[in-house]
Amino acid sequence: MAMKQVASSAIKALANSGSSSVLTRQLHASPGSKKIVGVFYKANEYYAKNPNFVGCVEGALGLRQWLESKGHQYIVTDDKEGPDCELEKHIPDLHVLITTPFHPAYVTAERIKKAKNLQLLLTAGIGSDHIDLKAAAEAGLTVAEVTGSNVVSVAEDELMRILILVRNFLPGHHQVITGDWNVAGIAYRAYDLEGKTVGTIGAGRIGKLLLQRLKPFNCNLLYHDRIKMDPELEKQTGAKFEEDLDAMLPKCDIIVINMPLTEKTRGMFNKDRIAKLKKGVLIVNNARGAIIDTQAVADACSSGHIAGYSGDVWNPQPAPKDHPWRYMPNQAMTPHISGTTIDGQLRYAAGVKDMLERYFKGEEFPAQNYIVKEGELAPQYR
Amino acid sequence: MAMKQVASSAIKALANSGSSSVLTRQLHASPGSKKIVGVFYKANEYYAKNPNFVGCVEGALGLRQWLESKGHQYIVTDDKEGPDCELEKHIPDLHVLITTPFHPAYVTAERIKKAKNLQLLLTAGIGSDHIDLKAAAEAGLTVAEVTGSNVVSVAEDELMRILILVRNFLPGHHQVITGDWNVAGIAYRAYDLEGKTVGTIGAGRIGKLLLQRLKPFNCNLLYHDRIKMDPELEKQTGAKFEEDLDAMLPKCDIIVINMPLTEKTRGMFNKDRIAKLKKGVLIVNNARGAIIDTQAVADACSSGHIAGYSGDVWNPQPAPKDHPWRYMPNQAMTPHISGTTIDGQLRYAAGVKDMLERYFKGEEFPAQNYIVKEGELAPQYR
Repeated sequence: MAMKQVASSAIKALANSGSSSVLTRQLHASPGSKKIVGVFYKANEYYAKNPNFVGCVEGALGLRQWLESKGHQYIVTDDKEGPDCELEKHIPDLHVLITTPFHPAYVTAERIKKAKNLQLLLTAGIGSDHIDLKAAAEAGLTVAEVTGSNVVSVAEDELMRILILVRNFLPGHHQVITGDWNVAGIAYRAYDLEGKTVGTIGAGRIGKLLLQRLKPFNCNLLYHDRIKMDPELEKQTGAKFEEDLDAMLPKCDIIVINMPLTEKTRGMFNKDRIAKLKKGVLIVNNARGAIIDTQAVADACSSGHIAGYSGDVWNPQPAPKDHPWRYMPNQAMTPHISGTTIDGQLRYAAGVKDMLERYFKGEEFPAQNYIVKEGELAPQYR
Repeated sequence: MAMKQVASSAIKALANSGSSSVLTRQLHASPGSKKIVGVFYKANEYYAKNPNFVGCVEGALGLRQWLESKGHQYIVTDDKEGPDCELEKHIPDLHVLITTPFHPAYVTAERIKKAKNLQLLLTAGIGSDHIDLKAAAEAGLTVAEVTGSNVVSVAEDELMRILILVRNFLPGHHQVITGDWNVAGIAYRAYDLEGKTVGTIGAGRIGKLLLQRLKPFNCNLLYHDRIKMDPELEKQTGAKFEEDLDAMLPKCDIIVINMPLTEKTRGMFNKDRIAKLKKGVLIVNNARGAIIDTQAVADACSSGHIAGYSGDVWNPQPAPKDHPWRYMPNQAMTPHISGTTIDGQLRYAAGVKDMLERYFKGEEFPAQNYIVKEGELAPQYR
């Protein structure tokens, strides 16, 4: 894949993220050298394979030279668990902690209490549920994401997963690997996407992009959300608003989960709710693993009530070797990957840099990036 | 997956296929009982799993009761190779031979010569390159496909394969199966589709449907074909016409092959042409395996010049256990499946029934279905 497109897209993302915000003084900005810690996944031998691979420990979001030239201290690690981990050592005196959903450093109330100098928690990507947001708000911290940085990445990935399940791709691919050829063994449960009913739970940034991409497939599109979408977009996508989630779900051949993990959404797909879905339903979940009851999904895949389940989010992450979703039938799972494409990495790295720059200058962030600001949670996390 | 949508889509396909044709006398129609032979893939234990599984030997396109009630003889088999196979036994006295690209019965000049009673060759699906069309034309046979029956099925599948390659899905899924978790090992070569240049070689029925489905992904879309497409559709998809194939190919990050296999296209992707493609190119080929030089693709995947290759067509089919495409790196292959979804099967079964009905009545077929008519090959096969 050529590198040129990637770079220009990241530059555009950076330009966009700066243009729309009102620049005012930020409460907790303060002058002087800062200690900044980033927790990312480690690339090892893969780092050298791509000059744009900035999302890993070795790439460090491409910020090292810039931060150090400004006199700041910048520590990056993937070691995030337990009392003796590298992260824990820096908790007492760090000013800024950059984390990512792909290799989540769990920022607990206890860690927040210990982090006396902490001012700013930045999420490289989208989704800050690995942070105890209530504790962060009470401690007067600012929490911000790079909103929009990888929504296209995730929406594309969701459409891929819908097709992989509907078309029964994986059993076919496994035949190739094992030296078999049995068209019937794939075809008896392979369908067209055309004409099927697809429902998204959540029609925020990602859900809307998914609906736009689904439009030419001539499906019956439904969506559930707290609020109706813009009538223009509703008309453009042809998606129908379903106010009552439990009225929508049994209509769906394919369900896509597009909500943040909050106290309201945690475990909302439990055994009872799954039992009410259409027999043979396909589910795509790139949102968060904990929205779904792990064992209930594994059981419904085994019984055939769920005909296919695909997603890149697990509870917890990394998923242990004995996680039931690794073993259940008709799964098309991957590690947490959809939002960390090379294009996505360049955009969220640019977004983190932009916010750090504003933080050093005492300027406001783009309004949509705030998850916790002045003790208040963003609406989607309330 | 619900069955209701499937059935209604098949009925619509049947209605459409009949509405647009002029009904006139057909040269070789003749009254009386006919011997009809169908060669399909065998389903075995999978047949009982889906009442709409009509595309296999056991399903027999759902035509048995209807054909036998009209006094015709109907034999179906999957045994198609060698001098002692079941098909060979019926060659001397069959009137109609129904074949399918998914389990191709190779209708050679020799078989045509032996088939003294043969009048009609019907392809259940699209693509009649398994038939020696020149020999069929010289023998005065009619060859017809169910044009359009599975174009949506194939176009959807192509978009899935593009995403599987661009997003580096399979290495991620294999980590899940093997108990690993290494986001970096996937992410270093995972990209967004947005912003990439996608070129289709061939913008016929399938190519156009693919371009329409690619439109919301905000790619740079190119197409090469014998003729420019309708200006309205060009405007709708934003695809740019490239008259010179070899000028288009080096621009593409992703190449999709959407041409029939003819004497002109056979082996057109050879070592020399592949060498001129962009390093890191991704290729999707659901058209025909023989359009590409088998070993040249395997070598270019091994060297990394081709960064990913996905398709469902092989040369020959079934692919032998030692076919190099089973073993080359970064392949996302399946057996020949994209056009034989349950929805596709119901549509091409309905289309075959419609043509048999017309054949018995001495009526013309829908004009677009003819591959060989009165000694003339359809334009795409010339």
